[in-house]
Order: sequence, then structure tokens, then C-alpha cells
Amino acid sequence: MITLCEKREKWPVQGEIITIGNELTSGMTLDVNGWYAAGRLTASGLQVTRITSVGDDYASVSQALKSAMKESSFVIVTGGLGSTDDDITNEIVSKALQRPLCLDKEMFEIIKRHTASHGAEMCRSLEKMAWVPDGSKMLSPEGKACGFSLVENDVRLYFLPGVPDQMRYLIDHAVIPELRSLYTKLPVTMCRTLKVYGLSEPRIAEIFRDLNKKTGKALIGFYPHFPENHITVSLTTERARDGLHELDRIETLIRKELGPAVFATGEDSMAEIVGKVLSARKLTVSVAESCTGGLIGHLLTAVPGSSRYFLGGIVSYGNEAKTELLGVQAETLEDYGAVSNETVREMAEGVRNRLHSDLGIAVSGIAGPGGGTREKPVGTVHLSLASAEETPSQGYRFWGNRHAVKLNSATMALDWIRRYANGDPLLPGI
Amino acid sequence: MITLCEKREKWPVQGEIITIGNELTSGMTLDVNGWYAAGRLTASGLQVTRITSVGDDYASVSQALKSAMKESSFVIVTGGLGSTDDDITNEIVSKALQRPLCLDKEMFEIIKRHTASHGAEMCRSLEKMAWVPDGSKMLSPEGKACGFSLVENDVRLYFLPGVPDQMRYLIDHAVIPELRSLYTKLPVTMCRTLKVYGLSEPRIAEIFRDLNKKTGKALIGFYPHFPENHITVSLTTERARDGLHELDRIETLIRKELGPAVFATGEDSMAEIVGKVLSARKLTVSVAESCTGGLIGHLLTAVPGSSRYFLGGIVSYGNEAKTELLGVQAETLEDYGAVSNETVREMAEGVRNRLHSDLGIAVSGIAGPGGGTREKPVGTVHLSLASAEETPSQGYRFWGNRHAVKLNSATMALDWIRRYANGDPLLPGI
Repeated sequence: MITLCEKREKWPVQGEIITIGNELTSGMTLDVNGWYAAGRLTASGLQVTRITSVGDDYASVSQALKSAMKESSFVIVTGGLGSTDDDITNEIVSKALQRPLCLDKEMFEIIKRHTASHGAEMCRSLEKMAWVPDGSKMLSPEGKACGFSLVENDVRLYFLPGVPDQMRYLIDHAVIPELRSLYTKLPVTMCRTLKVYGLSEPRIAEIFRDLNKKTGKALIGFYPHFPENHITVSLTTERARDGLHELDRIETLIRKELGPAVFATGEDSMAEIVGKVLSARKLTVSVAESCTGGLIGHLLTAVPGSSRYFLGGIVSYGNEAKTELLGVQAETLEDYGAVSNETVREMAEGVRNRLHSDLGIAVSGIAGPGGGTREKPVGTVHLSLASAEETPSQGYRFWGNRHAVKLNSATMALDWIRRYANGDPLLPGI
Repeated sequence: MITLCEKREKWPVQGEIITIGNELTSGMTLDVNGWYAAGRLTASGLQVTRITSVGDDYASVSQALKSAMKESSFVIVTGGLGSTDDDITNEIVSKALQRPLCLDKEMFEIIKRHTASHGAEMCRSLEKMAWVPDGSKMLSPEGKACGFSLVENDVRLYFLPGVPDQMRYLIDHAVIPELRSLYTKLPVTMCRTLKVYGLSEPRIAEIFRDLNKKTGKALIGFYPHFPENHITVSLTTERARDGLHELDRIETLIRKELGPAVFATGEDSMAEIVGKVLSARKLTVSVAESCTGGLIGHLLTAVPGSSRYFLGGIVSYGNEAKTELLGVQAETLEDYGAVSNETVREMAEGVRNRLHSDLGIAVSGIAGPGGGTREKPVGTVHLSLASAEETPSQGYRFWGNRHAVKLNSATMALDWIRRYANGDPLLPGI
């Protein structure tokens, strides 16, 4: 992260996360559990000071647990609660904290019901999961997943399964509600993400150098999320309503400075925003893709209900497809080449006519690694957008490998549709 | 991971990884650096016992460093080497190990050259990066990225930037070569991945229950990698040649059991394999996509040089596009619906004719969440493949959300092309 403004608050409640599994320390599996738990806890006003991944052996787990308990109010442990021989968290905790394993009858019943509902038979290894350290409290909101918690030396310990869906469910429905009810004076950390496309990182940094004076106590972060940039505004507040007002105020400030480069607030993807704008304006679109190979259509159709505004597309990868399927003149291709304003204009008009859509967007470029020339190096991409009124076209030069050029080209195409439908100026090119 | 067979070896050299950054402990960023380093080290015969993520403050970093040094032969630290105010690893290490910061002139020159080549000016904050703890050795193979290493109490410490590309480059080109040269007796862990499509997880587990008796000391793992399944065979050996023979033997065993469901060994994606098979057979292909919206074309064109065999496609999202662009009969759509063997057959033949390709593949289905009926629920997808000889078609039922259905449909389409070109039978459907 590049922190654009540094005003950190002191946090009242700190905790740690321990994720268990040889698949983590051997690099077979990415630790998405630690990441998820940290994000949710942070957003709830609880600070995570350390995330530790260890293998599933007694020495590593018990040492990590003891070390974490020294300096934390809470410790969240994930992994090793399952039914296989690898799953030894219960035993380790029992031994490390000197609490004998006891059968939790309620948990046993839940596991039994769950097993039966999957048409499987209850066996010893499944029963094992219900033997938990003495004094444990089962965590199983609505019986959807099972974990347990313990209090040892005033430290609250949570043990959750490593299966991501179950772990997430328990974090959201058991751990965070309990911690927040324990620490009622906990401030809330509120966060808002603004998504930006088409402004370079140095340019954004420059804008924020001035903005920082006006953003009060909010912490403003900046995350490249290729080919977009995401700006997060987070602040810690006693009262959610005050925080909301402050976030609104800062969002207005940022939007004033960045203009239409801010394409979304929150979770919406570029394709979802395009879908909303097209639906609101009652416009339909079709796509003529060359170097993107189908990616624009794929992104547009990732949105449920996109058939209302997306009519279809033509992937004219070869020149023959461009002339036969889109009606691009052979002379245009000869005189200007496939990657040119002239060609993309005919592609955009061709696809718009053939699919009877309000808008037709076309992209042709050199994704690389081969195919570049001195005049048109790899990364040269031309776009055009045909409507009933006009057919603007423009060239861009994108950096990066084949995938990066494809993704940037497709995102630029979506951004053109958005800007056109909103009446905003298109991004300047080469 | 589901370990299909459990035969672990004892490791001679152990180390730890520390990743630094508030963006990690706050859950803003997923720790891909720890994961990458752990995977590469493990594959090189070095064991990672712990991965710790801490915030960028003195207390957390120095404590993590000291704790790691107690039990490790090497420690890899990533993050905090950059030019912003957050980047304080050098200072922390200097203070924690009581080694004053000294200017590394060689590193300074590299940073200066790098800065100039980006058209930027050298400034104080960039110079800061070249001030490293006394006794540090610069790591900068071919000047492509900069880190440094230290030896303290016989423990080898590596400090690498947090930027993933640079970190990975240094792990592969500096850290691992040095560690392997230090521990020459290190056994090699060799790993081979076999990629499988179209066999369910229980079916694979069943096959391996029998296979396990024949796979000797090799550790066989199984990773769902939707919609594929990846089987990894890893073994630790003194001599690479022996290991290679053993991996070959086991691969042959597995391929014999799984047949054409194994589509690749190693890094190749399904689209790359399809490209290789089409190139070898001198066949061209075109695609007619409905529910996949362009994804098949996108996957095919992710491969450099795909223009040699991929001629283009038609994304016929609406029914009108199916009749007008592909020549599907209106009666076919009326009588059988857009998601039917009859329609996809006309789509496949239509796209093959219009693009003059050897093969034409077509997909039409219900990606959801809406649009399902009792006879054709969400996830119902029909495929067809037209060639000069025949046009087989088949229906499938895929599980999961919209993205899962799209991805499974597109992968099935690629698998059809691969199987057809190889002369293998197509996967049975509903």
C-alpha cells in the first residue's frame, strides 16, 4: 500500500491470527483465511498485530499460541479442526493448555445431522471433531459450521475450521459479534473505496498531496488494482452516523478533484457500472473485438441480466473476419492496417449495424509479445464507439504483457461506453 | 489440501519468512509474497516452519526478527524497503541488530540508473533505499531488483522488497541459488503437477486409494482448482536423476488410470494445450458463444501466437444474433429453445462456415442466476463441435454461480477441441 496520508489512531483492542496447515508453510496454498479474518476484524474496530502461519505439528502450534497469548486480547486460530489425521488442533490445544478433551454433545449432534444430510455415515474420525478441550464453548450459529472458543488468562481464543466458507461464516456470525459485544466502547472503523480508471499513480498522488489537508482524521490509502486504482478512505469513529457524514464529505471532495475518473464507489465493477448506465439510458451495445479476443463480452456478461443491454459481439481475430463479418473495407486494412482509427471505426459501425444496437464498440491492437513495429509497438490499441450520431476513434499505448494489454484494452472499452452514456469526455490517447 | 498419501520426510534445513506491512495485518492485501517464497523454498529442499506477517512498526518487526532467528538457519524478510515514509525495514534492522546504516554505493548507482531510465529525478527518499545496515551484502542479480543480506549469529537474513515481481525475481535469482550453494547436501524436492478436467473429486480419490500402493515414497496431493483438479506428485531425493525417473514412473501410472482426463503436465493451461494440439494437427477453429459471452475466445487468445489457429468468433447473446449472424433457423429456436442440441449444432456449423475454419465450437446455456426452468435449470449448457465430417452435440449440467457456470462451460468447450483433435472420446453429458 502507498499510504497517502498518515494519521493513525491508537487502537484499544489488539489480537492475533494463527493459521495452521503444512499446505500454508509449504506454499501450496495461499493464506486467504488470515487475510479475510484480518480484514473483517480491522473493519470492526479490532486491530490485528500479527498473522502467523505454522505447520500442523505440536511444537509449532503450541509455541505460536503461547506467544500470541502474551500480548493479545484475542487470538483466532484456523485450521486443523477436520476429521483427517492431519487435523490435530484440538489435541494440541488440550495439551498446551492442559485441558483434557471432552465430548461436546451438542457439537456431536450437529456433526451427526450434517453427516446424515450428506448421505454419509457417522464414523470415528468424524466423532473426533466433537472432542474439544475442557471448558470450550461451541460456536455454531444456526448449526451451519462448527468451531469453539475458550478463555485462558483473560485471553479469548477462537478455534475455527480451515475450510474458507465455514471460517468466514463463523468470523462474521460468531467471533465478531461476540468481540463487539465484549468491547462495547469499541470505535467503528468505516471504510469506503473509490475506484478510479485512467489516472496514473503519480497523478493521483499529486492530487492527494493537496487534498490531504482537507480530509481531517481519515486515513487515505491507495491500492493499484490493475488496470484500475482503488482509493480507500477509512476512519475510526465512536458514532457510525458521524463517520458516514465524514465519509460523504470526503467522497465529495475526491470526486470534485478526480472527476469522471472515479467510476464507482464500493463493490461495483466497471462492467456493473456500465450495465447500470446503459439500463438507465435504455441503450443497447454490441462489441467488435480483435486483440481482446472476447474479453469485453466476457466482462459485460459477467453481470447477471446483461442480456437486457448486451446484444452480442464479433471477435474478428483475423483480417478476413474483419472484412467478411464486419464489412471492413479491404482497402482500409491495406492502407491503414488493422490497428488504426480507420479500421476500428468501420468495425464499430459494422458491429452496430449487424447487431442493430444503439452503440457499437470496437477494439483492435497489438497485445504482444510479437507483432509490434517501430510505429506501432506492442501495446498500441485503437478504440472506436459508433452511435447514431458519431463514431469517435482514438489510439492508446498500454504497458505490460499480453494479459495486461488485453485487460487494459477491455477496461478502456467499457470506460468509453460509460463515459459516452454519461456524457463525459473520453480519455485522451496518443 | 487433501493429502492423498502421507509419507513425509524429515527436513535438514529450516527457515522462516516474515512479511512486513500494515496492509497485511489489516487484511487489505493478501500475502502473496509469503506464499510464493514458501513454495519456491520448499521445492528447493528448504523447509519453511513459519510465515509471520507484522505491521510496519519497530516493536513488531524487531520481535518477529529476533524470534525467527532463534530457531532458523535462514530468515527471509519482505517489505518496507521502498522509498516512502512507511518503508522503515532498514532502520528497524539497523536498530534491532545494532548495525549502523551505511550507504551502499553500488546499490545507490543502480537506483540512480533505474530512476533515470524511468525519466524521473533522484531524490532524498530514493537515496534512503541505499542506506543499509553495516555488513550487508547487496542482492541485485543483473541489476533488475535490489535487496540485501546479512549474517548474524550464523543465521542468514535476506531482506527483499515487497513489490511481488521484484521479490520473486530475487527469491529465484539470488536467495535460492545462494542457499543451495551453502547447503550442498540438500536433498531436492521434486514436484510434478498433472492437470485433470472432467473427473469428479470423489472419483479421483477413489482411483488414488488403489494407486497409493504403487507410488513408493512420493507424496501425492490433490488440489481442486475450479473447474480443474490438479494432482501434485512430490518427492525428496538425493539425486535429481533418480527423482526424475521416479516421477516419470508415477506419471505413467496416473495417466494409465485417468486416461485423457489428464490434459497437461506442468504449467500449461488448457488453452495452451489446445493451441499445441491444433498447431500440431494444422487445424483452425472458430467459436460461437452464447452464455460464455466471449470467454472461450478470451481464453484461446490468452496464448501468444493464437492467431495461427484461432480465426475468430461470434458472441450471439440474443436470439436475433443467433439467426442473423450464425444462420440458426427461427424454427429451431422456437421448437427446441436456445439451449438445445439442435440450436448449438446450427451455431457450430454456422460459425464454421462463416469463418471458414476447420472446426467450429458452439456453446449455449443458462448461466443464471435467472432464466432456469424445471426442464432446463440454471447450469444447463449444450455444446456442439462442427467439423467437415460430423457435428456432435451434448448437454451438461454444471453447478455453481454464474461465473462458475461460464468458466466450466468455456473449459468444457476447450476440452472438446482438445479431445476431438486428439481422437479421444468426448466427456459424457446429461
